[in-house]
Amino acid sequence: MEKIHYPFEIELDVRDYELDAQGIVNNANYQHYFEHARHQLLRKLNLSFVGLHDDGFDWVVHKVEIDYKRPLRSGDRFRVKVAAEQQGVRFVFYQEIERVSDGQIMTIGKISSVFMQNGRPVKPPQLVLDAYNSLYPGRKNPARSGGIQENAEQAD
Amino acid sequence: MEKIHYPFEIELDVRDYELDAQGIVNNANYQHYFEHARHQLLRKLNLSFVGLHDDGFDWVVHKVEIDYKRPLRSGDRFRVKVAAEQQGVRFVFYQEIERVSDGQIMTIGKISSVFMQNGRPVKPPQLVLDAYNSLYPGRKNPARSGGIQENAEQAD
Amino acid sequence: MEKIHYPFEIELDVRDYELDAQGIVNNANYQHYFEHARHQLLRKLNLSFVGLHDDGFDWVVHKVEIDYKRPLRSGDRFRVKVAAEQQGVRFVFYQEIERVSDGQIMTIGKISSVFMQNGRPVKPPQLVLDAYNSLYPGRKNPARSGGIQENAEQAD
Amino acid sequence: MEKIHYPFEIELDVRDYELDAQGIVNNANYQHYFEHARHQLLRKLNLSFVGLHDDGFDWVVHKVEIDYKRPLRSGDRFRVKVAAEQQGVRFVFYQEIERVSDGQIMTIGKISSVFMQNGRPVKPPQLVLDAYNSLYPGRKNPARSGGIQENAEQAD
Repeated sequence: MEKIHYPFEIELDVRDYELDAQGIVNNANYQHYFEHARHQLLRKLNLSFVGLHDDGFDWVVHKVEIDYKRPLRSGDRFRVKVAAEQQGVRFVFYQEIERVSDGQIMTIGKISSVFMQNGRPVKPPQLVLDAYNSLYPGRKNPARSGGIQENAEQAD
Repeated sequence: MEKIHYPFEIELDVRDYELDAQGIVNNANYQHYFEHARHQLLRKLNLSFVGLHDDGFDWVVHKVEIDYKRPLRSGDRFRVKVAAEQQGVRFVFYQEIERVSDGQIMTIGKISSVFMQNGRPVKPPQLVLDAYNSLYPGRKNPARSGGIQENAEQAD
Repeated sequence: MEKIHYPFEIELDVRDYELDAQGIVNNANYQHYFEHARHQLLRKLNLSFVGLHDDGFDWVVHKVEIDYKRPLRSGDRFRVKVAAEQQGVRFVFYQEIERVSDGQIMTIGKISSVFMQNGRPVKPPQLVLDAYNSLYPGRKNPARSGGIQENAEQAD
Repeated sequence: MEKIHYPFEIELDVRDYELDAQGIVNNANYQHYFEHARHQLLRKLNLSFVGLHDDGFDWVVHKVEIDYKRPLRSGDRFRVKVAAEQQGVRFVFYQEIERVSDGQIMTIGKISSVFMQNGRPVKPPQLVLDAYNSLYPGRKNPARSGGIQENAEQAD
């Protein structure tokens, strides 16, 4: 498997209300973490989820696959990483959650999204594509095909 | 594709705090709906998530796959269905969310879980297997192999 | 203290994701329960929170006071009650959560709300006042002054 | 009114899933913000909510009063401040949420809590009192009486 290059990440702390009675973070909250990281990336690119909605583009998730490898616990600090790739009408995010204390991978997600305009799926707006491509300088259409993977010489 | 037989379902209403700024139910909440239906099924079987935890068995989700077909909105009432199948050390739930007003399938989920005891995955406790098998009277080990599928003569 | 007459209530089950690591329902969720009961009452009156928003009226909470008397736990079923009273520009809700199994009062809330139109507080829309007054047949302006209290002959 | 001195604060970003259909942060989430700030303060003092629970002390909220002055919106960054004062068996937190961009006070909270041991309220454990008193160096029993208020010469 080729290593994924994540051009963006945020760091967060577990909040105790996110725990459940087992004392571990409830599964649904990882979707919250993933979403927040994607939206913070949008902001870094001078776009916003709510702004796109107000412009008539609803960016909706239509499929998620999440592997819960290890549970986050009270007091854990973690990184939420984001890579993105256009696949036709879809915009697919590869995401990973890594515990800061020891670098362990806790959760891996593949989030497939699509833009809706007037109730129908449409191609991602060009300004979104341009913004994401800017994350991969020196590559041609990186978000379009394989741009998220490390170059061979970069992979460890 | 064979039709899945769901031996258990609950009915819920969308709660407005579950909506996001797009006016649709936020993706993470469907995991909440799925979880609540699974736990209510446990209760019907005279077991409980918290009780199992207190007995040393932590039932954890290790993988989810969710297809978001149509979004739930304010005012929607919906059914959350549950079928379950043992697959070796795993306990896999097939779940579906159906809008009550028109029977549309909104969301489909496959939730793979495992029991943890002293930090290690273990075979599902026999009382859990017995409880789930009781959902499929007249079938041999239904939760063990293919029990979740309709018989040909039952499918509509 | 005069007994409050609650003209509306809903019944809900604790959902396990609402518990925190102490095994009791996290405090913030009681605001969710209160809100959901208020919005279900609106629906019974043929109004809706989202519909009012789309019509330019944002119904916002500006003050809450909540007494947590006993915690709800996994498996508890409970009633969420609502009474409402207009107090000038404010619309004040008195709410109570009662455990079904034994009738114990778990939580008491006073939720003060106001309607915003174009960023400014405005008098509650007449259709909202009419709707709420319909909850108290045979009383004059019940939502306006003291309508939420039981008549002496009604109190038990 | 005397100015409150807040010896601790954290900075957070609004997460879009915290918004509701009105496009503002849902009221219940402010309780989450307040709680997270209190628990982060505990950690700074080398204590933890979950650790106290494991030691048999459940720190529970029994009353909240929250004034929602202005709503937080998508993209807002904010400070959550904490001051604390022992009042007999109670431990009262004064909290404030301030928008970073312009210093506006968005939300004010008074959160009254109590320690429970074996189902009964008990005096706050001495290590908790000592920890909180350490926030106010050079004052005698600051957490016990009036310690949260600025001295006249300190107030701006």
